[in-house]
Amino acid sequence: MQPEQTELDSAPPPPPIKVALAGAGVVGAGVLRLLSRHAEIIAARCGRRIEVCAVAVRDVNRARKRLPPEFAPLLAEGWRHAAAHPEADITAELMGGETDARECVIAALKNGKAVATANKALLASRGDEIFAAARAAKKPVAFEAAVAGCIPAVKTLREALAADDVYEVAGIINGTCNYILSAMTREGRTFADALADAQARGYAEADPSLDIDGADSAHKIALIARLAFNARPSLGEFLTTGLRDFDPRDVRYAAHFGFCVKMLAQARREKCGGVAISVQPTLLARAHPMAAVGGAMNAILARSVFAGETMYYGAGAGGDPTAAAVVADLMDIARGNGALQMPRDGIASPPVAPSDFRAPHFLRLRALDKPGVLAEIAGALAAQRISIEAIHQHESAPGKQVDIVMLLHENSRGRMDAAAAAIKNLETVFGDAVIMPIQRFDTPPAGR
Amino acid sequence: MQPEQTELDSAPPPPPIKVALAGAGVVGAGVLRLLSRHAEIIAARCGRRIEVCAVAVRDVNRARKRLPPEFAPLLAEGWRHAAAHPEADITAELMGGETDARECVIAALKNGKAVATANKALLASRGDEIFAAARAAKKPVAFEAAVAGCIPAVKTLREALAADDVYEVAGIINGTCNYILSAMTREGRTFADALADAQARGYAEADPSLDIDGADSAHKIALIARLAFNARPSLGEFLTTGLRDFDPRDVRYAAHFGFCVKMLAQARREKCGGVAISVQPTLLARAHPMAAVGGAMNAILARSVFAGETMYYGAGAGGDPTAAAVVADLMDIARGNGALQMPRDGIASPPVAPSDFRAPHFLRLRALDKPGVLAEIAGALAAQRISIEAIHQHESAPGKQVDIVMLLHENSRGRMDAAAAAIKNLETVFGDAVIMPIQRFDTPPAGR
Repeated sequence: MQPEQTELDSAPPPPPIKVALAGAGVVGAGVLRLLSRHAEIIAARCGRRIEVCAVAVRDVNRARKRLPPEFAPLLAEGWRHAAAHPEADITAELMGGETDARECVIAALKNGKAVATANKALLASRGDEIFAAARAAKKPVAFEAAVAGCIPAVKTLREALAADDVYEVAGIINGTCNYILSAMTREGRTFADALADAQARGYAEADPSLDIDGADSAHKIALIARLAFNARPSLGEFLTTGLRDFDPRDVRYAAHFGFCVKMLAQARREKCGGVAISVQPTLLARAHPMAAVGGAMNAILARSVFAGETMYYGAGAGGDPTAAAVVADLMDIARGNGALQMPRDGIASPPVAPSDFRAPHFLRLRALDKPGVLAEIAGALAAQRISIEAIHQHESAPGKQVDIVMLLHENSRGRMDAAAAAIKNLETVFGDAVIMPIQRFDTPPAGR
Repeated sequence: MQPEQTELDSAPPPPPIKVALAGAGVVGAGVLRLLSRHAEIIAARCGRRIEVCAVAVRDVNRARKRLPPEFAPLLAEGWRHAAAHPEADITAELMGGETDARECVIAALKNGKAVATANKALLASRGDEIFAAARAAKKPVAFEAAVAGCIPAVKTLREALAADDVYEVAGIINGTCNYILSAMTREGRTFADALADAQARGYAEADPSLDIDGADSAHKIALIARLAFNARPSLGEFLTTGLRDFDPRDVRYAAHFGFCVKMLAQARREKCGGVAISVQPTLLARAHPMAAVGGAMNAILARSVFAGETMYYGAGAGGDPTAAAVVADLMDIARGNGALQMPRDGIASPPVAPSDFRAPHFLRLRALDKPGVLAEIAGALAAQRISIEAIHQHESAPGKQVDIVMLLHENSRGRMDAAAAAIKNLETVFGDAVIMPIQRFDTPPAGR
């Protein structure tokens, strides 16, 4: 790194701001390394030094072996050291989990510390309590790292798009799911096969449930909905469909119509004022940049009245990218960025029921290839006032079972489910229908 | 828009901050409309109201007909009203041009106003003077809108990536060029044809020189290089190659190797500490999200040590997206965001000479299809120590002229030019070679 030439103009510089870390796992260790390696750059760019005054861990001896030796004298056992350290201006909660982390954040705020955290699960489930404590303490809770790692989604929604009227946010915000779906798409693998590959490469945990069942994406989109729309959704309140049952055939069927399938989390303010949220495998136009978000990468897209469609892309997880986001938060706190203040608790935007989630839909059925079957299916759809945009039957096998794929015009998930139930009762149809929403972003003519 | 439920916690709120506009063209009118339509949201989100106290224009009568009537009483003739208005805390310079705009910004700073501007040409050519005036006045010059419209590139480099070590920034930052190249790619059009289409649709000016010759991209990348690397390049100091001579054949040849061609502006800190800048049609992997940036859209990509590759996508021009960026700057000024302070004028990073710009390259030649020709060409490359990654001859026509396309391993532009000159002198080669750099971003396995 070249020597930093820049210095802020205010003289004398304010005293260093001190941070106590609770937790020194992958993210915590990255934060320490970044604060140490870029100390001069950080001081120059935010006008004051950021110093670590304590590193609270569960096991001091284990941490001593893993962390750079300069931090050894700062190690202490138990998060309380980070929440109550008398010198600390900021407590960085990097433990994960919900019980201790909650206590740590609340205690730190009560002790007059600002807080930075990467803990999406905590904020999604305990956000009301934590942000109320922050308001009572008049201290910020910064959480850029809790949503999609180093992608500055929180800062962008709060600051860059602050003047605008954001009405929809959608994201590929789980790297594990995206890695698995990308592999299924690229190589036609089964879900089980792609999951095993992701586990072998370190993109999925030994127990991958939190990722592949959609809970991790749900935590993040709940936090985004709070930020963008003042919604305070409970996690059970919106549709969350994981990947376990996803069939690679649907990748091919979607491609036939110019779509790919991505695990998409969405939050949208409806005209009624309610906020519709969902996490589902979703069809996207293959020409849209969002469709090119491959491997374990993440992207978040916002749609707003003045700026139109904007998208933010980067690594959504990993120690170093997450650490970069945590330290950017520490710098914002050190600079006193007023945008970090949480807004007053107003009337929350009401959630839209999962059955009222509206979208055009993809529908795949297993049916007998014989005259009249399509008429019956179309009739069941018409009974729910669902109109058909396109039908495709990929093989012709008279008298045998075939896949029938349809694109359906915008309708509610409730009507889709009702139509699917009626279709299932037809004698010529076998098994459950596959239903996925279609997200039509503004796709400019690509030209690749 | 639903009623805004949020309010900052500090009581009583600070007094409104007042802004005087210099210029009320497309962007200025957008700023007025946004400030008026979202006044409550803006006040809630930045803790104080933003009020317009003057709108300085060249022709009051013309402006009166175009602007919402509520602003009629604020109209005044001549930018001096905006630079010197006694109530104004901020002057928003939205006139464009360089002469009056420069005087306006300098005068406003001397009068103790903060400045927001969308004027990339001004900052690229007069940045030293203007940022020195800002430091002397201890007032910020905010310029998010000057680089790629509503894409928060400035904020991200200054704040989200502030702790990180950014070593490269690359962007598709001219919508006109991107529209033309996308059309040439998608439809195989000639440059002239695609330009005419862009003009008909309002994506290119009647005189398109500033866009298609690369000057607009050059202004923006110069500004990005200043921000990211403390470089202060003069516009003639780096390679700027426009689109006029771009041949649609090269789209097909690039595609053969898995690349698309985009007008890419790049700034990169080299290991020597110098900063290499270029604006050229450039080959990008078709699987990378940057390749999916179609139509008139823009994207800026940063590579940094901790965050890795991040990318920011959106509308790079247009009244409303640019207005959203200007008002976000006004809100940052109203909040007192310390990141807006320009760093002290340190030792500038030296520019890298255009001939020292290093990249793998694409080379296309017109040569006789006969034995021995390739050996001569390879010999000329070897004499410059340029090694060949791949060769492709798309047609076989013994004894006739054919196109030969090569991918060459990383080398300097100076050596490429020297080799091209030697090759041109061969009796079996006709006309000038086409040389384009190849940018290999980290392309994750896409899975569309």
